[in-house]
Amino acid sequence: MERSVGRLVSILYRKNQVYLNIALKPFHITASELPILTFLFSHSGVTQEKLSSFLLIDKASTARAVQSLLRKGLLRKERDLVDRRANKIYMSETGQALKPQIAEILQQWSSFLTGGLDAQSVDTMYTVLESMVKKLETADLREIGRND
Amino acid sequence: MERSVGRLVSILYRKNQVYLNIALKPFHITASELPILTFLFSHSGVTQEKLSSFLLIDKASTARAVQSLLRKGLLRKERDLVDRRANKIYMSETGQALKPQIAEILQQWSSFLTGGLDAQSVDTMYTVLESMVKKLETADLREIGRND
Repeated sequence: MERSVGRLVSILYRKNQVYLNIALKPFHITASELPILTFLFSHSGVTQEKLSSFLLIDKASTARAVQSLLRKGLLRKERDLVDRRANKIYMSETGQALKPQIAEILQQWSSFLTGGLDAQSVDTMYTVLESMVKKLETADLREIGRND
Repeated sequence: MERSVGRLVSILYRKNQVYLNIALKPFHITASELPILTFLFSHSGVTQEKLSSFLLIDKASTARAVQSLLRKGLLRKERDLVDRRANKIYMSETGQALKPQIAEILQQWSSFLTGGLDAQSVDTMYTVLESMVKKLETADLREIGRND
């Protein structure tokens, strides 16, 4: 079988979800709620639509996760002062206080995965993954494979 | 911010899901049904429980995807001859016939992502990702971070 980025990434992603559900349990957070928190740590104050489109999570799942995090008091919702029909989602103080613990949980995953591997190869892997992510930022996904 | 395997993998994974939903549309397959097909291409004839535990997809989502693929005629279900309470899931001929097209869709994703990047670095990335996947095969995910 040819090497497939998609296959490897999807195995790593699903294992990561299992790990995150275990590691986040003491904080009553699920793996599917995590992307919203990590995004808001650095971009507090966005609409639910922005969250959904930026994180590439469909609107229904985003709404479900936001509702759950609001109920737990980790986020707060405020009417936008300019566009009064829109609500913006902010980190609450309780939510923001979780940042170091969550960063540590993410870091432990990286350390576990890369531990014992050649440091220079790991560095190259990071650089290549970052290049691929960067390439995707401006890519039109409908065009991939069209001109082969 | 420290480099995080989890963060990069999750961005690549979600973009891949968006791409797959576009690329698989002509075949009436969704990104969430794909792992079941790719697994069965090489392991036809397993129970739904095995599919769920091997793919790390929860039972409800596995059942939903299997039902949908059965309805589309891409899989078939047969009573197990030994354990007559169990059903086994097989690729149908129609499903199996999609293998080359699906392989091409996955390959186009890899080619797009790695295109234009240094071939040796890409090779190193594959090797490191494979090492991490291998490490996870025998890992107890509950133990990660316990002894830090």
